[in-house]
This record gives sequence, structure tokens and C-alpha cells, in this order.
Amino acid sequence: MSFKVLHKDTGSKARAGVLKTAHGEIQTPVFMPVGTQATVKTLTNEELIQAGAQIILGNTYHLYLRPGEEVMKNAGGLHKFMNWHKPILTDSGGFQIFSLTVNKKITPEGFEFQSHIDGSRHFLSPEKVVEYQLLLGSDIIMPLDECVPYPSARDYVEQSLKITHDWALRSKKSLPKDVPNLLFGIVQGSSYKDLRKISAEELCAMGLNGYAIGGIAVGEPSDVLREISAYTAGLLPEEKPKYLMGVGMPEDMLNAIEDGIDMFDCVVPTRNGRNGQAFTGKGEIQVRNGSFKNDLRPIEENCPCYACRNHSRAYIRHLFNTNEILGLRLVSLHNITFYVKLIASAREAILCGNYSKFKKDFISNREKI
Amino acid sequence: MSFKVLHKDTGSKARAGVLKTAHGEIQTPVFMPVGTQATVKTLTNEELIQAGAQIILGNTYHLYLRPGEEVMKNAGGLHKFMNWHKPILTDSGGFQIFSLTVNKKITPEGFEFQSHIDGSRHFLSPEKVVEYQLLLGSDIIMPLDECVPYPSARDYVEQSLKITHDWALRSKKSLPKDVPNLLFGIVQGSSYKDLRKISAEELCAMGLNGYAIGGIAVGEPSDVLREISAYTAGLLPEEKPKYLMGVGMPEDMLNAIEDGIDMFDCVVPTRNGRNGQAFTGKGEIQVRNGSFKNDLRPIEENCPCYACRNHSRAYIRHLFNTNEILGLRLVSLHNITFYVKLIASAREAILCGNYSKFKKDFISNREKI
Repeated sequence: MSFKVLHKDTGSKARAGVLKTAHGEIQTPVFMPVGTQATVKTLTNEELIQAGAQIILGNTYHLYLRPGEEVMKNAGGLHKFMNWHKPILTDSGGFQIFSLTVNKKITPEGFEFQSHIDGSRHFLSPEKVVEYQLLLGSDIIMPLDECVPYPSARDYVEQSLKITHDWALRSKKSLPKDVPNLLFGIVQGSSYKDLRKISAEELCAMGLNGYAIGGIAVGEPSDVLREISAYTAGLLPEEKPKYLMGVGMPEDMLNAIEDGIDMFDCVVPTRNGRNGQAFTGKGEIQVRNGSFKNDLRPIEENCPCYACRNHSRAYIRHLFNTNEILGLRLVSLHNITFYVKLIASAREAILCGNYSKFKKDFISNREKI
Repeated sequence: MSFKVLHKDTGSKARAGVLKTAHGEIQTPVFMPVGTQATVKTLTNEELIQAGAQIILGNTYHLYLRPGEEVMKNAGGLHKFMNWHKPILTDSGGFQIFSLTVNKKITPEGFEFQSHIDGSRHFLSPEKVVEYQLLLGSDIIMPLDECVPYPSARDYVEQSLKITHDWALRSKKSLPKDVPNLLFGIVQGSSYKDLRKISAEELCAMGLNGYAIGGIAVGEPSDVLREISAYTAGLLPEEKPKYLMGVGMPEDMLNAIEDGIDMFDCVVPTRNGRNGQAFTGKGEIQVRNGSFKNDLRPIEENCPCYACRNHSRAYIRHLFNTNEILGLRLVSLHNITFYVKLIASAREAILCGNYSKFKKDFISNREKI
């Protein structure tokens, strides 16, 4: 077994575990910074390690288009290409084909689409996507799936699920037996609980290495997000890691941990960081704000990140006002540190048996700005 | 005396020295990275220290507009504002008023101009510029001057020189006697040797702490650049540091060292770095070039910078192709390291008595790409 639950919370479904991969163990719950194009935006690997990152994401769709197979093969896979030697999870690209490409067409065989970069035509089958993730050397492979928009008609979701499940099975069949790469399943079903249940059952019957909840955080209200993700998490086997894709805000993650989720990824810390939004234990601040003009405090007191150890809000505000790249770096680094440490602290709280107090304290503090 | 020549080259006017400032000693010849807006573009202070930077530049014009006096005063000066505790030289802003502003007007009193950011009207006198540099806490203060374009009519240059010299004297008078900040003079005179001579004589008579050669690298042919800078360097007192402003390419700097220049600054390593041009001992490479698609070598073998220790040309090319900020960082860091180490190596060669061989070897290697 690649996954082991070490401790279960008594007041909720929260659990602390360890997931073994070909590039080392991951302590769960875990936040995974997003490195779509073989780089977590603005940051070096060294900075990610200092922030405490245990695993990062790459994206099959993006890395298939650029740098492409030839370059990746020559480099010896994604770890060597980007010189990152801890685990990597690669998303299949289903979501990106759904959200980025034009003239796309889904058939039982796979996805036809035009590249968002140069309009070139491509076809990706579930087998091809697994093959490319094997070339990437991904520690955790996600199968090709269809991520339906919210809201979607029930009929459409039902049809889509058949394809997603068939693709998951084809993905499993195409993965050689002796490889160390893990293959997860992605539960879809939009906001329909019964369809989520069918999806979970079908995928669980395939005996995959872990289960992700997909099609979440695609525009649905936050109460729907919580309800569907909690419901779906409850359908998944306890002995496998549970991954809530693309979520989210700090409170959403802490709620999801209570529902039994082990793994998170989200672009918010880097994307919002590049827009000047910095996360703190008391809430978010916009560093461009005039109120920070003469504020010599760091973004957050006692934060161990380079930005907070070395620079003031006044200085970082100046960097944003003058469009200096160092500003984007400092806030991205702070936010990644905040996210990684938050989930690491949640794990500690689970192990110490005080998760619900930890969550309550965090949420009540967050309203203080 | 703040400056001491330690060793003179026998085959040229090259010399190795030490310049004492309020924030520490600078080993000369020295390359000073340009941190116009209180940041050397894309880089952290930690990275600058690792690259071997001993001193950085700030720009009075830019820092006067943003963040402005109130913020700088509240922060306690530029060192504290940006958390850089080694020496800082601040350019006066004369060149930026010349090149960036609109509706500018020079009078014997000072410069009237409109901000390049918001069109607001400003007036800067030489006294005000010194006052702001004292507020910045600049270790080396440059006086306000007029940097004339190339080519300029002799009559105009003669009139302009009178103002520049008067402003240098007013700058000196406005500097309190007991401050540790050094004040340099800026020799102007365009491409007219006799005017350069007059300018050097007038400024030297003021007994300033060092002398800069200004109005160079403003569009003149490279032979004129070399001839005028060499001629002007020869007019300056041997016991004072000589600073060639805004120069330049590696070969230009090594030539200028031979002419007795001690200090350099230039935006080329960072500006060209952000455009993908990387400096190497064999010449410049454009990292976007298709020939690097599968090139797993670093930008430069044996370079001690983070980029070369960790990443391949193929990876850095991918970062530029995908517009990833990490690419700008890595090439900027490499180029700053290259520039700083080049001038540090030139100093070692002078101290070892083999500067002319060092320069000859460097230049012949540079043609190998």
C-alpha cells in the first residue's frame, strides 16, 4: 500500500497520513503548489523547498504543447528537466482542454482540440495522456477526464460520466504493471449527488491508487462546493488518499480536511500573489493599498518566509506601484509559504488531537482585518 | 582619504584600490549593479550578495517620484527601506530628466520637468538633489548635472558646462561638513576634448571625493566612446576614484580599466537578461534560440550562479518561450554574476601583475561563439 493513515481525528473525518511515491514520502494533509509549465510561477525550487513544499503539480496539457515530447524525452523527464527531485503530480489536462482550447470536440476516443498558443490541431486519448505522464516521470498520474461546466444538464453529465469512467479504465489498462507511478481516479458528476455516487463506485471498483474529486471550484456557489465535496469524500475508500482538485481558499481547505480530504492544489497563492493579494492569519491584504504606504511591518509578523524576514509592507507596496518583478516574487513566496504551513499545521493539530480547536481559532482570527 | 590605490599595473593605467564608505569598503575596480527603483530588477539582496555585489546604484529622480520623500523619511533612508546594508551610490537624476521627462526646462536655478509617470510638474535644484540624497543616506552622492545628447553643438555644450560646474559647486556647498557621505563630480563636455579638459579642471579644483565621466554611452560610436573616456580619465587626479557612468559591454569595461577607471555601472546585464541575452566568456547567447532546445548544458560551465548550478539552457529557453518570470530571474542573476565576477577577476589580475594577459585572453575567448 502506498498510503497509510497514521491518526484519525475524533471529532471529524480529518486524518493525518503518509503517501509513498517514487520520489519520496508525502505527509498528508498536504498543499501542492501548482507548477503548470514546469515552474511554480516566479519561484525557484530552492524557494519552494524553503517554503516546505513536499510535492508540486505539473500540467500534462501545457507540457505536451511546450516544451513537447522530444525535449522532455531528451531531458529525461520532468524532474530532471526542471531539476526538482521531490514528488510531482501531473494533472491530465482535461480541465485545461475544457477551459483554454478552442474548437474542441470530445468523442469516446479522446479529445480533439486546437492549441491555445498557436491554434495547431491535436488529439489526445487517455492512453496517450498516460504515456506522456510516464515520459514526464510523474509520481502521481491523473487520467484524462471531462470536466463539465457548472451548471450542466443532468443528461449531459450522465453521458460525460460514461466517457470519463471508460477513460479511467483505459488509463489503468495502458499503465504497465511494474511501474512505480501511482494512478488516481477523478470523480465527476457535477452537482448531482447520485451521479457523484455512481462515479465514485465505478472508479473505486477499478482499484486505483487514490481518488480525486474533480469538477469542483468551477463557478458553483460555495455552499454547493462544500456540500458536494463533503458528500463525495464520504463515498471514497478510507484507505486511499483523497484529493480535492483546485480548492481553494484557506477556510475551504480546512473544511475539506474535516471531510477527510488529504491533498490540495490551487493557483490562488501565486495568481493572487502576482496581483498583490497577500494571505495572513488575520485575513487577506492588498499590498498596493495606500494604508501600507508607511507600514514598516512585514506582511505577517513571525512568518518565516524571506519576504517577511527581510521586507516591509511599505517596500513591497512600492515594488508593486513601480511594477517591479521582485514584488511579484515576494508576495508569491509569502503566499506559498502561508498555504504550505497552514496545511502542515493542520496536520500537526490532527496528530495532537486538537484539529477542531485549530480550525475554529484559525477561522475566528481570519476575520480580524 | 576615502580612496587608496593598492597596486598599479605596469603595462597600463589600470589600478586596484579600496574605497571607504559609510557602509563599508569597496574593492576597485568594481561593477555596481543598477537598482534604479530600490531593486536591482528581478533580484533579491540575498542573490546580489551571492553574486558578489559590493555596492548598488539607486536613482534620485526615480526615488524622488516614487516612493517619495515622506515614505523614504519614515523608512529611515534607502538602506533601511530596501534592507540593503552595503554601500549605495545614487545617481542624481540628471540623465533621467534628460531622457525620460517631457516639457523639461533647464535654468541656472535647476530643472523644471514633468514626471514621466503622471505628468505632474516638479522643480529640482542641485541643493534639493543633495538634500534628497542625504535623506536616502547615499554613500556616494552624485550632483545634479546636464547630460547633453550626442552629437551636440559646441556652443550648447559650453553653456551647459557652466551650469553643470556651478551646480557641482552649489552641491558641495550644500553638503554639511561633518557627514560621511561622499560627493563625486561629473565631468561633461560631450565629444569635445578641450571642453572635457576644462570640465575636469574646474571640478578637480573643487576637491571632490571622486570623479565620474558622464555623457558617455549616449549614442556615440564606440571609438569616440573609448577615445573620450580614455582622454578624460587621464585628466583626473590619480588619488581619487574614477567612475565611468553607464558603460557598458565587457570589452568596454576592460578597456576602460586599462585607462585607469575604477568604477562601472550599467543596466545591460539585467535589461538584456530580461530579453534572454546571457553573457558568457565565449560571447553572448540568446537563450530563446532554437539551437538550445535540447541543450542540457548550463548557460556557462563552471559559473557559480544559481542558474548555472541548477538549470539547463533547454529549461531556461522553455521558461522564456512560455513567458515565465523565473526565466527573467535566472538570466538576470547569471548576467549580474558574470559582470561582477569579471571586474573582480580584472582586479585580481591587476594585483597579480598580469592584467594585459588577462584582458587579451578574455577578448580572444569572447569571439568563440
